Amino acid sequence: MADLRVPALRWAEPPDGPVLVLLDQTRLPADEVELVVTDVPGLVAAIRSLSVRGAPVLGLAGAYGVALAAARGYDVSEAARLLAGARPTAVNLEYGVRRAVAAYEAAGDGSARAAAAALAEAHALFREDAEASARMVAAGRELLGELLPGGRFRILTHCNTGALVSAGGGTALAVVRAAHEAGELRRLWVDETRPLLQGARLTACEAARAGMPFSLLVDGAAGSLFAAGEVDAVLIGADRIAADGSVANKVGSYPLAVLAKHHGVPFVVVAPVSTVDLATPDGAAIHVEQRPGHEVTEIRPGVSVAPVGTQAYNPAFDVTPPELVTAIVTELGVVSPVDHGTLAEVCSRSRSTKS
Amino acid sequence: MADLRVPALRWAEPPDGPVLVLLDQTRLPADEVELVVTDVPGLVAAIRSLSVRGAPVLGLAGAYGVALAAARGYDVSEAARLLAGARPTAVNLEYGVRRAVAAYEAAGDGSARAAAAALAEAHALFREDAEASARMVAAGRELLGELLPGGRFRILTHCNTGALVSAGGGTALAVVRAAHEAGELRRLWVDETRPLLQGARLTACEAARAGMPFSLLVDGAAGSLFAAGEVDAVLIGADRIAADGSVANKVGSYPLAVLAKHHGVPFVVVAPVSTVDLATPDGAAIHVEQRPGHEVTEIRPGVSVAPVGTQAYNPAFDVTPPELVTAIVTELGVVSPVDHGTLAEVCSRSRSTKS
Repeated sequence: MADLRVPALRWAEPPDGPVLVLLDQTRLPADEVELVVTDVPGLVAAIRSLSVRGAPVLGLAGAYGVALAAARGYDVSEAARLLAGARPTAVNLEYGVRRAVAAYEAAGDGSARAAAAALAEAHALFREDAEASARMVAAGRELLGELLPGGRFRILTHCNTGALVSAGGGTALAVVRAAHEAGELRRLWVDETRPLLQGARLTACEAARAGMPFSLLVDGAAGSLFAAGEVDAVLIGADRIAADGSVANKVGSYPLAVLAKHHGVPFVVVAPVSTVDLATPDGAAIHVEQRPGHEVTEIRPGVSVAPVGTQAYNPAFDVTPPELVTAIVTELGVVSPVDHGTLAEVCSRSRSTKS
Repeated sequence: MADLRVPALRWAEPPDGPVLVLLDQTRLPADEVELVVTDVPGLVAAIRSLSVRGAPVLGLAGAYGVALAAARGYDVSEAARLLAGARPTAVNLEYGVRRAVAAYEAAGDGSARAAAAALAEAHALFREDAEASARMVAAGRELLGELLPGGRFRILTHCNTGALVSAGGGTALAVVRAAHEAGELRRLWVDETRPLLQGARLTACEAARAGMPFSLLVDGAAGSLFAAGEVDAVLIGADRIAADGSVANKVGSYPLAVLAKHHGVPFVVVAPVSTVDLATPDGAAIHVEQRPGHEVTEIRPGVSVAPVGTQAYNPAFDVTPPELVTAIVTELGVVSPVDHGTLAEVCSRSRSTKS
């Protein structure tokens, strides 16, 4: 089986004007369909429907969205506002938008030169993201080597954090894939990740195509694996990390953190520093997106499994407090133990690199 | 909305011979379809496919299955062997089979009188089960009153433990329903219970028809509710309880027990004493049924969500150790704290009642 057609998002310039081309992640693994986006409302719809998803690639979507608006002569401020608000928990989206808008504004008065600056910044973010992924892989593998000497480990993951979420190999799943290629992975346990099944549809797909030894499980079965001593570490990504080290990630991550703590298993988060939001002081301040109930009550669109009128509680994310996180692996180093000070120190390397 | 057509299982005697009539639980909530079973292989298939499921009603299925074989002149020993082995973790099934076989054998030589004795014993078990349910409800409500004085509580439940699993109102869900009818239930949180969605399909259905305030959630979202302080107690059933108080129940129960412990929330099991298996010394000795992978990889029969060839880990149950169980509510009293001694003491009330 060949690798997936990645990156999940790319800029193209056909004769009738620039476009963003997205790999429609809602159609995977059955179909590899590309979505061609020509304006910001179309991109916002693709972000909301999760056709494009995953923290790092949402940053790229934000930056390229601004570049698209600028190149096509739309109102860039309005485009930035729409994009930054498309999904409230994903901080990378805001970050990408901010970067492209800053470049656009610094280049002048809304001219073609400003549009080119926004696009150049989006391309720069793309390259940075690929490079950050490679650095997270190196740091993550080194950490696994320290935590689990001898290799041949069994990793549990949740949601999807591979090549579909990044200009590079991704975050947590990229670390797992590199470990596999080095012969160190005994098994990858893949949570199916209800309600939208990113584990079953996307992670299983990437794992299968990379030839990893993996097994899929319902989210509730992870407890049995911990109890049987079948999990050596949990590796997940993040959608926003607060200043105190609280980690917002796909709903179902927090129960894994509690199980990992109960069983003395390392719980490791892999995320670029752009996911850290120092303006959000703690977990309680993270705004968790509530998604429509039909994602829970319908097993696929229009096919209800629950009685008519059933109300659903459907948060897209949950928040894991820092005391349950063994380490956060970033492209600028590993944060461990996780607290306000250690996190701020690694983030300061980012500022010093750029100054 | 009317109540469901219950009991989930009933004996009938049409002109062409006795039959068991099952409410096909795999078709709920869309269709209320009855399955008419005329022989033991048909009943075994219905048990394996979960057309009939739930600990107490599996005991009834076992007893009536023996009675059916006897009445129709099939080999009763062979029927008993097939039935007792249909699902390995569910101890009530064995219990029901054993009760009916004992009555059959005590009545003599395989005559019509012996068949009548087996049927009479199945009917007795049916009445006992309904009565046990009523007693568990009374004991469970009293316990909730002690644990959560003032009422208006929010209960989290997993899988389905209501009128569909019993000749009476059920186990855990029967307690919740009685609390609702007494005006004490603020909200029932219903885990959808992957892979077979008994929460979404069955518990939500019973809750809706009983007019309870309830919300459905994916199993991984329970952690968010605990973190938000939205769960006052967890109430679940059991499929087998070992002599040390370890509780085998639907997969996904153990993570709830760990979360409940982490958040200081009572974790209560409601089950008849027939679910206690003193011959199984501890949790490690409980045989957990592994079910086919397609239950995980296919979102409904034939509709795969994972890549072709994906291997799934699909245990039907998990095991919660006694130190995580606040109390076990039985028809003979409440076991709390849960350990070998307290459990044996309540079970001895059963023997003394029958002696």
